[in-house]
Amino acid sequence: MDLSTLNNFKGHSLPLAEQIAERINQLIIDQRLTENDKLPTEFELMEILNVGRSTVREALKILVARNVLEIKRGKGTFVTKNPGINEDPLGFAYMQDKIKLAQELIEVRTHIEPWTAYLAAQRATEADIKELCGYCDRVVDLSLLGKAHQDVDKAFHECVAHCTHNRVICNLTPIIIYSVQVFSDISESTLRRKTNISHRQICDCICSHDPEGASNAVMAHLDANRNYWEELWRGI
Amino acid sequence: MDLSTLNNFKGHSLPLAEQIAERINQLIIDQRLTENDKLPTEFELMEILNVGRSTVREALKILVARNVLEIKRGKGTFVTKNPGINEDPLGFAYMQDKIKLAQELIEVRTHIEPWTAYLAAQRATEADIKELCGYCDRVVDLSLLGKAHQDVDKAFHECVAHCTHNRVICNLTPIIIYSVQVFSDISESTLRRKTNISHRQICDCICSHDPEGASNAVMAHLDANRNYWEELWRGI
Repeated sequence: MDLSTLNNFKGHSLPLAEQIAERINQLIIDQRLTENDKLPTEFELMEILNVGRSTVREALKILVARNVLEIKRGKGTFVTKNPGINEDPLGFAYMQDKIKLAQELIEVRTHIEPWTAYLAAQRATEADIKELCGYCDRVVDLSLLGKAHQDVDKAFHECVAHCTHNRVICNLTPIIIYSVQVFSDISESTLRRKTNISHRQICDCICSHDPEGASNAVMAHLDANRNYWEELWRGI
Repeated sequence: MDLSTLNNFKGHSLPLAEQIAERINQLIIDQRLTENDKLPTEFELMEILNVGRSTVREALKILVARNVLEIKRGKGTFVTKNPGINEDPLGFAYMQDKIKLAQELIEVRTHIEPWTAYLAAQRATEADIKELCGYCDRVVDLSLLGKAHQDVDKAFHECVAHCTHNRVICNLTPIIIYSVQVFSDISESTLRRKTNISHRQICDCICSHDPEGASNAVMAHLDANRNYWEELWRGI
């Protein structure tokens, strides 16, 4: 039942720095290091791993590139918030035909997000509800002021996912709402207003533990999005 | 509608090698380089990007660590099959409590995979069907011989996803069937036999364009898995 073997996948034919990177990675997993936990110093790692300084440095750079570690100047090397998860884990940036990609994303979101909201409404704790309402208020406030609210919007969706208490859903959600970031820039105030109303509905249904209501509210939210985009695409 | 801006996210406060890595990444996206496409040489990149050799090298290493590029000795630097997608994009390896993780994965698979099979049955082309039957036969052959068949099993599931012609589903599937790799090692022959029967059913339903049948067959497949694991967990 141990996933750690997957980190040894690449075996011994790897360059030394890669091998050391895998060993440091394993150390992070074994010692259950998480967000903001500090790694041993370069010198300590040289001792532990019995390699030279340049190899340790190169290994750390590899783990920084993989978003496992971050180096804070003058402070040391720390584990990131979501180790191993990068900004675009499904490689959308490399896909051609972004309009088709947007349609594909909406298809997937329409299947996953109403279900996520359903589970959220069933499982949200009091603390979850408080947090969710906070994000909902902030999204509304910011958009009424005409200010950018992508980050809070994303946080709202991530919080809904968190309410399911399923970590796979939590980590999947930012990927499929990736589109929020991409599309918010060019969304118009009409859509924004509609979005706020549906956000509030989603939030209310989760708070009152109404799974069907939450699911339907998300579906309506996505329908509004889809209709908006389809009109836009027709105009292209 | 352009996702490329996401690659410039981190802005200019980055170390030079990181900035150059982002520019090379953008070059790959702009020039639509895909699997096995060769990158310009180090010297050409030095000219194009107006930086020294060590910076180019460090930038290339960053993109190798991110699975965007691979260096083939004596041949040059090439774009990978799935640029930007690593082996564990949701960072499962870093999560504690693997039994809970397995349960969370099954919950997500139960929601996504029957739907995937449904769409696959609706959309599979003749070529898709031929490929799918091939994988199905190979999984059965290998397991009858008692040989490891995780790779072909994974390929079968990925092929079902491919039949949907939705690239987001295609890229999501390997993540949620990640568990196949993890759990196959310890699966017993009983489960294996059941798996083969349900694989065949899934394949048959997709081939005959029967969405409900395909969806039900996957659900049965996952139920068998879940029952098997629940019994195992009870015994722990």
